[in-house]
Amino acid sequence: MPDLPALRPGMIIGILGGGQLGRMLAMAAAELGLSCHVYCPDPKSPAFAVAAARTIAPYDDESALAAFAGAVDLVTFEFENIPVGTVRFLEGRVAVLPGSGALEPAQDRLAEKQLISGLGIPVAPFAEVSRQADIYSALARTGRPAILKTRRMGYDGKGQALIRAGDDPVAAWRAIGEVPAVLEGHIAFEREISVILARGRDGATAAFDVTENVHEAGILARSSVPAEVSAETAAEAVSIAARIAEAVGHVGVLAVEMFVATIGGRPKLIVNEIAPRVHNSGHWTGDAAVASQFEQHIRAIAGWPLGDAGRHSDAVMINLIGQAVDNWPALLAEPGTRVHLYGKSETLPGRKMGHYTRIRPRSRA
Amino acid sequence: MPDLPALRPGMIIGILGGGQLGRMLAMAAAELGLSCHVYCPDPKSPAFAVAAARTIAPYDDESALAAFAGAVDLVTFEFENIPVGTVRFLEGRVAVLPGSGALEPAQDRLAEKQLISGLGIPVAPFAEVSRQADIYSALARTGRPAILKTRRMGYDGKGQALIRAGDDPVAAWRAIGEVPAVLEGHIAFEREISVILARGRDGATAAFDVTENVHEAGILARSSVPAEVSAETAAEAVSIAARIAEAVGHVGVLAVEMFVATIGGRPKLIVNEIAPRVHNSGHWTGDAAVASQFEQHIRAIAGWPLGDAGRHSDAVMINLIGQAVDNWPALLAEPGTRVHLYGKSETLPGRKMGHYTRIRPRSRA
Repeated sequence: MPDLPALRPGMIIGILGGGQLGRMLAMAAAELGLSCHVYCPDPKSPAFAVAAARTIAPYDDESALAAFAGAVDLVTFEFENIPVGTVRFLEGRVAVLPGSGALEPAQDRLAEKQLISGLGIPVAPFAEVSRQADIYSALARTGRPAILKTRRMGYDGKGQALIRAGDDPVAAWRAIGEVPAVLEGHIAFEREISVILARGRDGATAAFDVTENVHEAGILARSSVPAEVSAETAAEAVSIAARIAEAVGHVGVLAVEMFVATIGGRPKLIVNEIAPRVHNSGHWTGDAAVASQFEQHIRAIAGWPLGDAGRHSDAVMINLIGQAVDNWPALLAEPGTRVHLYGKSETLPGRKMGHYTRIRPRSRA
Repeated sequence: MPDLPALRPGMIIGILGGGQLGRMLAMAAAELGLSCHVYCPDPKSPAFAVAAARTIAPYDDESALAAFAGAVDLVTFEFENIPVGTVRFLEGRVAVLPGSGALEPAQDRLAEKQLISGLGIPVAPFAEVSRQADIYSALARTGRPAILKTRRMGYDGKGQALIRAGDDPVAAWRAIGEVPAVLEGHIAFEREISVILARGRDGATAAFDVTENVHEAGILARSSVPAEVSAETAAEAVSIAARIAEAVGHVGVLAVEMFVATIGGRPKLIVNEIAPRVHNSGHWTGDAAVASQFEQHIRAIAGWPLGDAGRHSDAVMINLIGQAVDNWPALLAEPGTRVHLYGKSETLPGRKMGHYTRIRPRSRA
């Protein structure tokens, strides 16, 4: 970004998307003296409550987008499912970081897998499924069990169907809505980890300690640091994330989810998916690292030096999904626990309503 | 507060005052799922940028205050110089915590000293100065050097004049504007400390580790934890703060500044002043304690359990006053440092523009 001057305190960051990630980004920006303008179609967006300005408009409203572009100094997004057309429209008027080049592969599971495997980084066996008839040849490539996933708009386990031995693959095709998809082979993994990496405009990177994750029903349930992996595996995981970030010219925080599998008696890392943004598995950083992932993202896009990703405490972050949030009074009374509630007006099954982090004295690197 | 139900997430806290303390309170409330409505006469108030709603109106605008009272579930304040009439007006319409009973003594240095000494807690020798002629008898009580301080509206060293041996005391009286004052004798102290204590609606208290402070030109320059005091002295300091909080029925965070003097070979604590609110010397808690002072204040007034005041790291907090804030790029690049900028539009001499905290692994309790 040689032409783009670094932001100065007092400037305004535009955030596309008004969920809890936008909310936490806006607070991190405010801590650094920047102010935020949140753009989101949903009038109940939780990020509005901590933003200096808001635009409530659809993502294809060009006059609202043009006004937004004129009102901010830089744009970022909280979520990779912002239409790429929205980002391209804004890019003609104001700097957007990360840019559409980093956003596009993350919107398409097939493009994402091709990108990563093209870098020589292991991914699960996969095959394109564009029409019903493709499923059989795809299954021949991946074996069973396999998961059929929509190419677009997938998150928190949405748009996925499992095909076990004996299952009718056409039922899976119907379950995901008969839309372009990718079939992924099953990996017998031992654990799931993620790397939360920030990459600055100058290409500098800083990763938080590798996080170990547990999913339930396709949704992240808990993340812990330190992860139960060797220093060597952790270093390899960070190196994989940095290679991906560099390949797409990413600026900001990038999350890379990986499986740790034992193959031939040795641990092997297989990339599951990437998110070109702050990530649920990095929420512990706000409670147990010097700089949070939200601060890192703001620093990176602002053209500022990346913060200190060092960890001062061990941490276990647990999501409050749906009615689990009703347990907030007991959690508030728990020593060593930091509670975060997202200010969402309606509790729905599967909806992320908040999280809490148990922090403990640091055990080891 | 037996009649006042505890707040629930989604409810609205009204904050009187829109400076950096209101800003940090609003973010702490948002982290806990509460939303904030900031009331401040200054249209450039930095707290507005992180609040869900704002009222820009004078503190004596009864129609604006009535509308504010109707729009929020509970009111608090960020600053003790909110007119007590404003708080009383609101108390007729909505719960205000801490209430006017805790606010009033903190608005009058004479009442404050009488309150504290009335509890048997040591303060510096003091005497009332209501008219010019009082100065001589007052000096006879306090000795020289002494500091003449206005009874009202003093903070950050404002409204103070030093009277040394040989100085004309009338010059000091003129310097403070010939208004009701209190003369304070000099204490030959070894160090300055403060206790940041939260007291819940139920009377439960939780104190952060005692903080050691350095003032320059009457303004807090730096705060460090742990303070260089014995465990016994620290416990006594916390006990003094708790007695004061209980005496005024305080709910929320209360800061008590004290001198540590050596008298008869033993350390003795002398209370300098109190602030019925979150305090600059507690800013480190946001970076090095489990719960921050801002979170503690919100929990206390909400009727929720107090948070964990435990400290995970050692910390030195340094204020960015006036032009010192221009050093922000170097501070952002410093490992182990968390930078906080307040989003104030104008840099003025003596104005608190931000602070930074250097955090290090915890050395000792």
